Amino acid sequence: MTKLHEMTRLREMAERNGPLCVGLDTDPSYLPEAALRREPSPAAAVAAYNQKILARLGNAAACCKVQIAYYEALGLEGLRAYRDTLRAVKAAGLPVIADVKRGDIADTARAYARAHFSGDFEADCITVNPYMGFDTLAPFLEWARSESGGKGVFVLLATSNAGKADIECQRLASGGTVLDLVGAELVRLSAPDSPLGAVVGCTDETDARRLRDACRDLFFLIPGYGAQGGAAQIAATLLDRAGGVVNSSRGILCAWKTDSRLSGKAAAGTLTLDDLADSAAEAAFAAKKDLLAAKALPAQRTGNDRVS
Amino acid sequence: MTKLHEMTRLREMAERNGPLCVGLDTDPSYLPEAALRREPSPAAAVAAYNQKILARLGNAAACCKVQIAYYEALGLEGLRAYRDTLRAVKAAGLPVIADVKRGDIADTARAYARAHFSGDFEADCITVNPYMGFDTLAPFLEWARSESGGKGVFVLLATSNAGKADIECQRLASGGTVLDLVGAELVRLSAPDSPLGAVVGCTDETDARRLRDACRDLFFLIPGYGAQGGAAQIAATLLDRAGGVVNSSRGILCAWKTDSRLSGKAAAGTLTLDDLADSAAEAAFAAKKDLLAAKALPAQRTGNDRVS
Repeated sequence: MTKLHEMTRLREMAERNGPLCVGLDTDPSYLPEAALRREPSPAAAVAAYNQKILARLGNAAACCKVQIAYYEALGLEGLRAYRDTLRAVKAAGLPVIADVKRGDIADTARAYARAHFSGDFEADCITVNPYMGFDTLAPFLEWARSESGGKGVFVLLATSNAGKADIECQRLASGGTVLDLVGAELVRLSAPDSPLGAVVGCTDETDARRLRDACRDLFFLIPGYGAQGGAAQIAATLLDRAGGVVNSSRGILCAWKTDSRLSGKAAAGTLTLDDLADSAAEAAFAAKKDLLAAKALPAQRTGNDRVS
Repeated sequence: MTKLHEMTRLREMAERNGPLCVGLDTDPSYLPEAALRREPSPAAAVAAYNQKILARLGNAAACCKVQIAYYEALGLEGLRAYRDTLRAVKAAGLPVIADVKRGDIADTARAYARAHFSGDFEADCITVNPYMGFDTLAPFLEWARSESGGKGVFVLLATSNAGKADIECQRLASGGTVLDLVGAELVRLSAPDSPLGAVVGCTDETDARRLRDACRDLFFLIPGYGAQGGAAQIAATLLDRAGGVVNSSRGILCAWKTDSRLSGKAAAGTLTLDDLADSAAEAAFAAKKDLLAAKALPAQRTGNDRVS
């Protein structure tokens, strides 16, 4: 029997727990000064906060996404916290997506695959950047498809920033846009139960419908919901067809800042990581509810069953 | 007086020592088994080999480039070797380019800038991937331009892999290709003595001439020479105008494999890191000579002084 790869496990978790992906993009600046001071170091505080959130998530989330940049910014100690956070997510029984957006060629891409699919920084799924060409994807997909590897790969398709207009949305002489071209290649590379997925930001309803219909068998990792300004309704469109997971990072990590019950402690400088994690978990359950409610509305599908 | 930024120092070093950039993309698999076994760990062997090469480089190189993927692949210990290698390059008096190809948005891009322009992993220049849009470049350029920062940023323009045809070379409805568009934006962002440079692989003579003329004030980081199959003549074209540095990694790191004087020791399993580093340094001096000879030939400029 072939081992399930992690993209399949992720789909199953989303089916079971709903589509929320908790983004542990934990920058020390998200924590109150006083709580930071009580920990041995900013990196240690980040790892401890992540742990406390994980302990409270229950069935709020399908998975976690960890943005490596915030850990890299803290140097070696930060990467120790990154390793410990990946392990803590797995220990909590959740799939972990490493948001690394690596992209390079040949031996270098193979080294990145080894870096993020094995050893200290082993994740279940990773994000990759296709800019240098589709040969950059091959080493990751090879690893993902191998029985011993069994990992998942999310390729950047449509990001959630304004700058996506600069390259991703450029119209090609051959028709369509750069991101349509990437989408078509991902469709070509994928198959039902593929280890391949796509990153599609929830920032535009029309794009969302078009991409969802064009890549109907691809599972989506959906940033841009919550603090980044995306809406649950657009996320729901992207959750149609093969489905996906919707990431929320700051909306959860910084929920304590708008938690009126904590304002007294915040003013007195007595907020603990446990207080913050209580707010974070509550925000996660609220986000899950919001997403499930939006998803329950009937999907507005286009007539065309496969547009590219 | 404004502090010189690192792109300026790099240009000056290339002027003084010639255009060779030594790529310390040191994978443990490049070392003979017996030499690896004598070191405490593969990561320690890599750091020690890098050190020994640096001790022998003299005026062979303008700078070093360190590809982080090979170090990430060795986990936390590998990143310690990465930090130590960056420090060793700086201690040898050479500018160090971190080949990290990071690319992300807003706070995340700022975290990457902090990660690679300060702290444990502080480099002088870094490489970045523009795919998500030009807003991904802003946090790096802001840091590079600040007086306290004073760093350099190389943006991926034309890479040296076959897959560059997939996106970079796609023709746009508005005319030109994706890479022409990126080049035009880099020209727009740059100025004489800019902290901005571009990565341009030396794999195609026609492209090389066109890009060199289109971006005449941009300093180039040029991969694809040597083991990757590029030729000194194409590199020389790219070294015209504002100049650049030409990277060689495996051609130097693995020079011992084709060093006939070492075949006896290789067969007996008695090769030391010093033997390997002697070959590497000799290959570096040979590469410098090769590049300077090609550069001395008259440049075949196009008539047009600024094409985009």
